[in-house]
Amino acid sequence: MLVSQLIAKKRDGQTLSEAEINYLVSGYTKGEIPDYQFSAFLMAAYLRGLDGKETFYLTKAMLNSGKIVDLSIIYSPKIDKHSTGGVGDKVSLILAPLVAACGVTVPMVSGRGLGHTGGTLDKLESIPGFRTDLSIEEFKSNLEQIGLCLIGQTEEIAPADKKIYALRDVTGTVEFIPFITASILSKKLAEGGDGIVFDVKVGQGAFMKTLSQARALARSLISIGTKFKKKMTAILTDMSEPLGQTVGNSLEVVEAIEALKGNWQPDLKKVTYFLGAEMLILAGKCKSYPQAYQLLNKANQDGTALDKFQQMLKRQGGETGIIDDYSKLPQAKVQYQVQSARRGYLKEIQTEQIGWLAIEIGAGRKSKEDQIDPAAGFVIRKKIGERVQKGEVLAEIHCQYLKLAEKIGEQLKKCFVVSQSRSQRPKKILRRLTSHSESAVRPEMLPG
Amino acid sequence: MLVSQLIAKKRDGQTLSEAEINYLVSGYTKGEIPDYQFSAFLMAAYLRGLDGKETFYLTKAMLNSGKIVDLSIIYSPKIDKHSTGGVGDKVSLILAPLVAACGVTVPMVSGRGLGHTGGTLDKLESIPGFRTDLSIEEFKSNLEQIGLCLIGQTEEIAPADKKIYALRDVTGTVEFIPFITASILSKKLAEGGDGIVFDVKVGQGAFMKTLSQARALARSLISIGTKFKKKMTAILTDMSEPLGQTVGNSLEVVEAIEALKGNWQPDLKKVTYFLGAEMLILAGKCKSYPQAYQLLNKANQDGTALDKFQQMLKRQGGETGIIDDYSKLPQAKVQYQVQSARRGYLKEIQTEQIGWLAIEIGAGRKSKEDQIDPAAGFVIRKKIGERVQKGEVLAEIHCQYLKLAEKIGEQLKKCFVVSQSRSQRPKKILRRLTSHSESAVRPEMLPG
Repeated sequence: MLVSQLIAKKRDGQTLSEAEINYLVSGYTKGEIPDYQFSAFLMAAYLRGLDGKETFYLTKAMLNSGKIVDLSIIYSPKIDKHSTGGVGDKVSLILAPLVAACGVTVPMVSGRGLGHTGGTLDKLESIPGFRTDLSIEEFKSNLEQIGLCLIGQTEEIAPADKKIYALRDVTGTVEFIPFITASILSKKLAEGGDGIVFDVKVGQGAFMKTLSQARALARSLISIGTKFKKKMTAILTDMSEPLGQTVGNSLEVVEAIEALKGNWQPDLKKVTYFLGAEMLILAGKCKSYPQAYQLLNKANQDGTALDKFQQMLKRQGGETGIIDDYSKLPQAKVQYQVQSARRGYLKEIQTEQIGWLAIEIGAGRKSKEDQIDPAAGFVIRKKIGERVQKGEVLAEIHCQYLKLAEKIGEQLKKCFVVSQSRSQRPKKILRRLTSHSESAVRPEMLPG
Repeated sequence: MLVSQLIAKKRDGQTLSEAEINYLVSGYTKGEIPDYQFSAFLMAAYLRGLDGKETFYLTKAMLNSGKIVDLSIIYSPKIDKHSTGGVGDKVSLILAPLVAACGVTVPMVSGRGLGHTGGTLDKLESIPGFRTDLSIEEFKSNLEQIGLCLIGQTEEIAPADKKIYALRDVTGTVEFIPFITASILSKKLAEGGDGIVFDVKVGQGAFMKTLSQARALARSLISIGTKFKKKMTAILTDMSEPLGQTVGNSLEVVEAIEALKGNWQPDLKKVTYFLGAEMLILAGKCKSYPQAYQLLNKANQDGTALDKFQQMLKRQGGETGIIDDYSKLPQAKVQYQVQSARRGYLKEIQTEQIGWLAIEIGAGRKSKEDQIDPAAGFVIRKKIGERVQKGEVLAEIHCQYLKLAEKIGEQLKKCFVVSQSRSQRPKKILRRLTSHSESAVRPEMLPG
């Protein structure tokens, strides 16, 4: 097979066979097909499409490029959560210890920042000493001992996805449902768990800007995922504004620890609890939402969730002192306030642009080789629907240089749209999908 | 600017600005943008298209990646010809000295064989000692002294094109008119001339197989080229059979010298004269075709064109003795005749396949590293529409080994389709396009 002919085949809108997709994926993973050819294939597939079969073959080829973890030794239910990515989405850092504290094992293989969104691994790595590159043996051992482990894709887990994900990130081929599906599932299925709760983000700051796109992704994840015989639930949650109060790696770690101490931003709590309840239900730990919320509340309030977090830090080499002393996390030299030029109500936040600006100040990578500044980021002081006075602080910029802060500040200010008319707080939990149903979320299902 | 955002912009079908295209092209040329990002951009552009403005900006950015030769010191009009590539197309070797002998300066940057077509540089380099790697200073000095110079793309001329071309070749992004336009024009405009006559080849042996593809390319070349305030004419000429009698480097040099001595194959003369007349008209040397043909005839008959060719040989290090003694050119050990298996009329020649077979016997390169056998090639003894007797010679193969000749002979024979019904000689000059008109070519415009 000639790679340039396979590229041309997809470019011309033809369907690729399982053998052809295997050839491309395994050739690329082994380094026999260079980046520049694979990126041309990615763009051709993005623009010409991949059908359900091609997506299944792609997922399978990526999953089989590495090892699948055998967790049969662990008897407790093993459930993971996966978010499709947002701005300020630090849920995994809170949810994994919270649910583990409720007796569910949480095997979590996370990713790095992608496009304008942040990545759980980048957040964790802002903790001095924290290791995300554990071996599969260490991963299994941590799951057995403390019931949770957050790692990156090891060389052994879906190496094809690791390589493709990095390439997609810098070639404008991120926002494509078949690629997103294959990428998520190839990693998540390799964890060897029993089921997955998907948090599919919707809105301005998500990859899926509209409800219909998000539903399409949720359906794709569930339809391809169940072909591999796993339990799957997908929740559509709002990403029209950053989640919680912070955007940027060490800033988000602090917010996560605060939440584990019981000090929550309301939107962050609502999303974290709802996803937690779904995980407990999928695990068979609870039968109803109220029962699940009771369990979660207990773990949050009696300190067992925070304790789980500390155990995780210990086992993964992280500085545990950060829990009581945030100054042990990387600090920004400059803190710069962005003020509102007018009074009114915050009508809209250009959340995707905030994600790009976060990259611009160093919280993410412009190209694969870039170093992240773990301290860089924003503290968001106003959320949609809130009243704003002229001169009031909309956000704070944390970074290393005043000039950079000033430059980004000008642009960040424009991301906050203030209007004279009142506007409502966005609904946070939008829809719930399983392999056999799709429904709106009723108020009584939500945490109180 | 973030490269991945620019890729995404094109991916989504938006139009890129001049600054954005400059950023991409100059970043790629300098090595700041990696191959894998640029190839994703190439595929996005291929599938989403580039409009006239974007093609102009791309051409300009590629042109400005290198030096533009300053020929203002030369007062005579400076006109070049460019062919999109064919089989047996040795026109440049004859036309440059012929038109230079009529008082027009001909600055010509040529290419090597591409795909199944031959390249002027490879033909010239079959002449012992001939150098095509002159510096820009030598190029200018030759133009000043003798009015013509044929060189290859130096490192200084359009380096962006050189790099982008190599990438397109392996990423399924070759056959796209805006890229072809930018590639041709960025090289040709760097020559610093006043105008260009394009010979856009059409048919079986050309890259553009149909008249409509060829017209689209011709229109694109003229519309973008005239934006640079250069005079442009495009002629669509037939490539349904090899041009003239020979295919292969030293064989074509001999045919070119014979033409300069007045011994022409009729089709070669028709194309060369028509293009020559267009160059003289574009240069303002002549007002009409008859006047142009008179000038060309004179230069051909009184030996001044051949004299120009000799001057070029001298200045570019070529053995001038070849003009009177063809045995001073590389000679093939084997000459092998291919005979017709049946009688009838020659209905069709599979010209692209003849191009590939010429590469097979050594007249071109299979991969960049290959050495050319300058003596290898074919002499075509029958052309479309001619009567063929059973056992009559269709072509002769020149190469180094009898076994190779026998093997290629079997395949070459199949390229000549003999039928019982009469067929017409193909029309050679098909259409003429300028910046403000497109027309068929009337018989009175053709050489007598």
